[in-house]
Amino acid sequence: MANELIHLENDYSECAHPAILERIARENTTSRSGYGVDDACDSAAAKIRGLIGRDDADVHFLIGGTSVNLIALAAFLRPHEAIICAEQAHINVHETGAVEASGHKLLTASTTDGKLTPELVELLYSKQTDEHMVKPRLAYISNATELGTVYTADELRKLRGCCDALNLLLYMDGARLGSALAASDLEWTHLPRYLDAFYIGGTKNGALFGEAMVIINDALKPDFRYLIKQRGGMLAKGFLLGHQFDVLFEDDLFLSLARHANRIADGLRAALVAKGVRFLVETQTNMLFPILPNEWVAKLRKRFAFHDAERISNTETAVRLVASWASPESIVDEFAACVNQL
Amino acid sequence: MANELIHLENDYSECAHPAILERIARENTTSRSGYGVDDACDSAAAKIRGLIGRDDADVHFLIGGTSVNLIALAAFLRPHEAIICAEQAHINVHETGAVEASGHKLLTASTTDGKLTPELVELLYSKQTDEHMVKPRLAYISNATELGTVYTADELRKLRGCCDALNLLLYMDGARLGSALAASDLEWTHLPRYLDAFYIGGTKNGALFGEAMVIINDALKPDFRYLIKQRGGMLAKGFLLGHQFDVLFEDDLFLSLARHANRIADGLRAALVAKGVRFLVETQTNMLFPILPNEWVAKLRKRFAFHDAERISNTETAVRLVASWASPESIVDEFAACVNQL
Amino acid sequence: MANELIHLENDYSECAHPAILERIARENTTSRSGYGVDDACDSAAAKIRGLIGRDDADVHFLIGGTSVNLIALAAFLRPHEAIICAEQAHINVHETGAVEASGHKLLTASTTDGKLTPELVELLYSKQTDEHMVKPRLAYISNATELGTVYTADELRKLRGCCDALNLLLYMDGARLGSALAASDLEWTHLPRYLDAFYIGGTKNGALFGEAMVIINDALKPDFRYLIKQRGGMLAKGFLLGHQFDVLFEDDLFLSLARHANRIADGLRAALVAKGVRFLVETQTNMLFPILPNEWVAKLRKRFAFHDAERISNTETAVRLVASWASPESIVDEFAACVNQL
Amino acid sequence: MANELIHLENDYSECAHPAILERIARENTTSRSGYGVDDACDSAAAKIRGLIGRDDADVHFLIGGTSVNLIALAAFLRPHEAIICAEQAHINVHETGAVEASGHKLLTASTTDGKLTPELVELLYSKQTDEHMVKPRLAYISNATELGTVYTADELRKLRGCCDALNLLLYMDGARLGSALAASDLEWTHLPRYLDAFYIGGTKNGALFGEAMVIINDALKPDFRYLIKQRGGMLAKGFLLGHQFDVLFEDDLFLSLARHANRIADGLRAALVAKGVRFLVETQTNMLFPILPNEWVAKLRKRFAFHDAERISNTETAVRLVASWASPESIVDEFAACVNQL
Repeated sequence: MANELIHLENDYSECAHPAILERIARENTTSRSGYGVDDACDSAAAKIRGLIGRDDADVHFLIGGTSVNLIALAAFLRPHEAIICAEQAHINVHETGAVEASGHKLLTASTTDGKLTPELVELLYSKQTDEHMVKPRLAYISNATELGTVYTADELRKLRGCCDALNLLLYMDGARLGSALAASDLEWTHLPRYLDAFYIGGTKNGALFGEAMVIINDALKPDFRYLIKQRGGMLAKGFLLGHQFDVLFEDDLFLSLARHANRIADGLRAALVAKGVRFLVETQTNMLFPILPNEWVAKLRKRFAFHDAERISNTETAVRLVASWASPESIVDEFAACVNQL
Repeated sequence: MANELIHLENDYSECAHPAILERIARENTTSRSGYGVDDACDSAAAKIRGLIGRDDADVHFLIGGTSVNLIALAAFLRPHEAIICAEQAHINVHETGAVEASGHKLLTASTTDGKLTPELVELLYSKQTDEHMVKPRLAYISNATELGTVYTADELRKLRGCCDALNLLLYMDGARLGSALAASDLEWTHLPRYLDAFYIGGTKNGALFGEAMVIINDALKPDFRYLIKQRGGMLAKGFLLGHQFDVLFEDDLFLSLARHANRIADGLRAALVAKGVRFLVETQTNMLFPILPNEWVAKLRKRFAFHDAERISNTETAVRLVASWASPESIVDEFAACVNQL
Repeated sequence: MANELIHLENDYSECAHPAILERIARENTTSRSGYGVDDACDSAAAKIRGLIGRDDADVHFLIGGTSVNLIALAAFLRPHEAIICAEQAHINVHETGAVEASGHKLLTASTTDGKLTPELVELLYSKQTDEHMVKPRLAYISNATELGTVYTADELRKLRGCCDALNLLLYMDGARLGSALAASDLEWTHLPRYLDAFYIGGTKNGALFGEAMVIINDALKPDFRYLIKQRGGMLAKGFLLGHQFDVLFEDDLFLSLARHANRIADGLRAALVAKGVRFLVETQTNMLFPILPNEWVAKLRKRFAFHDAERISNTETAVRLVASWASPESIVDEFAACVNQL
Repeated sequence: MANELIHLENDYSECAHPAILERIARENTTSRSGYGVDDACDSAAAKIRGLIGRDDADVHFLIGGTSVNLIALAAFLRPHEAIICAEQAHINVHETGAVEASGHKLLTASTTDGKLTPELVELLYSKQTDEHMVKPRLAYISNATELGTVYTADELRKLRGCCDALNLLLYMDGARLGSALAASDLEWTHLPRYLDAFYIGGTKNGALFGEAMVIINDALKPDFRYLIKQRGGMLAKGFLLGHQFDVLFEDDLFLSLARHANRIADGLRAALVAKGVRFLVETQTNMLFPILPNEWVAKLRKRFAFHDAERISNTETAVRLVASWASPESIVDEFAACVNQL
């Protein structure tokens, strides 16, 4: 319909890539064991182990990002152990205190780009000096971050070094890992080298739902399934997750969907840059945060749906535009035309 | 294939009723808001409110049974408040201590049929006498129970009376509520009359996944969505749950699937009764627990897949047979023939 | 005053042994570092290490029994790990769900004497079979038990063997350890041999308040002080605990107080046995549970204060009599005279 | 001894005011009921109710500050409800994540003086917009603060107004309430007018240990003793707390001890001001934070014991000096003399 708004609100507004629905339909009546112990999960896990080049990695398929994060942190930490993260971290802002509800304190670093650096980690670490304070034990990063920024391979390598020096675990929230990998020099095989554990986000990259938790550090592996079950994250029909990730990691579908979303975002970004627009933060992924005069925002909203990110002044607002695996190519031209007329 | 085993292991071994997959496929590319705030969820919730005759009920769509239970109990109780339940209760045995992980103690009643009675509730209640002990605040029942038994409308009415007298909330785990309603005189409209809150199980009755939480008691409604999010139970693509329950409550599909499963179970039961078999507990639903000589068990396992329930003696075992919405009608005759030859 | 009741209600109804008050008065104005890092605590800990013959034991002075138990179990266990204990265990009945509030489930054994046996432990252990259930990780015993019974050295040795075989930790609640040691063949040096950790109760054996936690197993030692602080158990003026335990372990005061309480109880017991009274459970410590006709109970209450333990029948009640380090010797004769006249 | 250091490290380095020890010694052998249900606690509570002019206040005697805070916040809040506090708040920095271990998130305001203002509360409140974030429900203040600053009656009145407007509870940590009352225009009777609950600190004002929790808001009163017991804060010999507070609130002892400590601090402050020293923050209570050249710090440490507070530059350090109820008057002159010679 001509008047329907074009969605730039999120990357989880549609059901799933058709190949996923086809697989589920094809396997619909086959009986399988529950709880993620089935051939579909086995196949998907094997593909992930192959990608990252680690046959010994533990792979668990889980339901959603908050669920993965709270399960992982509950599994990995003792009660007095704390988490270092950026103040914008999803676990700090947008998970309703799920980590604290598991009993752990967050120590947050002030950043403008949502990224931890060795310096920030060391600063927070140095402030916790004795048993009257929590004990930092894990650094949490998101990649891509909540602000659409990414870590380079070298940045991750340095964080790993810092964490090793401070006896910290390094955990990556990969809700938008596809987009990050497609936008940086980071490769699948870097992940097990630099991280103790991470998850690969399916929900925001073409799956109906689901995230793949990957545990590299042997010390973190025991009894993880107990925590999954205890925190409500064990899907009865676990094979649904297996089917989805098995499809996503067939023929490079996962990264090709992420590249598509990034490419759409690149197009939107180019149109804004051409118009001389500034950005809240420079991004390379499927999210961008242009700072726009409020009248422009109002005009764009007649054709596009998107969220505000931050009030900049009385006259300007930073908005959040999200391109998706499902975004039609055509929206780039349409957006460019609109921006051009502003 | 002639040699493939017939599944009597569970009611969640296949993906979903075809009508559900069709709906998702049809709506696949429509963009919707996330987190359960969408027209599909609204439509499904309206149907449920209509069925139970309570326009004021709060309906939330959640991912799985353990997740619903731990969210509801965390939302409803203060830290020192305890739960009375049967020793066989799913929350006591099969949820890896999820309720305790939320901080609450279970007080368990010894039963043979998995059902609470006013007498059992009163006995447990009377033992908690002061602030050195937990304070009982909620009675948890499953219907159907973990043993396949059901509550009659009158039994529920009496439990309600007992709970009112003791200032206890009454909560029902409805993982197999369809089967219970199809097997007893209990009706949809009884539920809000006797219960403070309950959930309607989709996972075991034809959905890909999902349970519908229904809150009747106004005091339990505020901020429930905060708890859903905090405990990892808020699906990003909440509309997936809306689509499924909207289909399940169209044209009575929900109860017709449950009736089908019960009818298959009736057929299996009849064959066993005809053979003179005893049962661990008398059931009316889609689960049965025949006590069989171990040689019979071995012989049946050549054709049927099922779990052991309990060792009865050196020579006999109670096994668990579960019929499903997906079980073909033909298996009744095949099972009867096998039993007859034992 | 002639009419004042003689207290047999508890062993924590008076302030403290005079030697403790004297020490505190003597040290009153000396400035010391807080939080248990001081010379008084060091001295007391050294005495305890000497008694048990383990220079490498970690000793922490804590405030009270519930506080010790909840701190120790929170420190020792991961979230899905459960505790095996007798159904009468203090942590199960009389700590308002403190252990569950730390997130852990209790698996309780049915007993008549409040004691765990290898058979009971193995039975409970064997029922937890996979990640849908909690994972047993620690056996909790009280010595003396809540019913006044004790473990012999050989019984502890066998429990240790059972726990080793099942990879369980063995933890002892020693709220009444003095009484147990004074009443059995168990010796101080047995404790580190058979237990991973235990606490020595001061509150019920002459201290104003305080329990000494002793950790033997190296794996349980790290960061224990973080847990003490986090759970509110770190006394600012920790030296108060140091002073008290330093006095209690001077000149064998600790055991001599316990022997006194046991001896008083022996006297009470003898009077009841002479009268032909039965007991709920046979005890050797400072608590006894005679089963008395209700009229006798009423008559005794004119002279003695004590609690009911359990209703036996319409006409009989088991009562709980507790002798204390503070009980005057004279009460034995007075009690015997009263009983004789019943 | 001439060479012994003069303690300015803390206000909890000595045992107790002699009148307290005398009372305990006098009552030593009197048998009383346990757990704070006794005549001594009743008498002390009555005095506190009288002071604040509220016969209906609930008063509970607890063991220490961290214990009070974690119990109160666990009792007052639902799991998704968060606490607004200054970043310097004791609960944020020095309680090893005790509040988070109870499941609640802290939202911290950046301040230089450790005090919340309506503006800071409103700013933090406004950022939490929906169920993906925690819900602010309580503002926590310390008075005196961790930086030795105090709230005036008018400042508290305005905070109350702000909290009412935002439906927030207002809770005061009174670890150093005596010092605050002695240093400001705030009076006992203001407390119930502006606060929902608060505690009166004994540990840092002459008691062996102990804090008196006062609950004004009726909605926060039910079942508080369950929480005390569950979190390990219920002292078996509760009468010890009753005795102490009964003595502290006899003949104005509580405030006179606080005035003494403040007066000593005033003397120290005057000596530093005379020397032209700047302060990290301006204080009126028993704590001061002078910024000193590092050589001066070294010289003062030859005669006085105190802690560093904050490194200011390569050459200057802010130190923390704490005067106490137990500080001898003579130290003021001695300190002045030393400072004068710097």
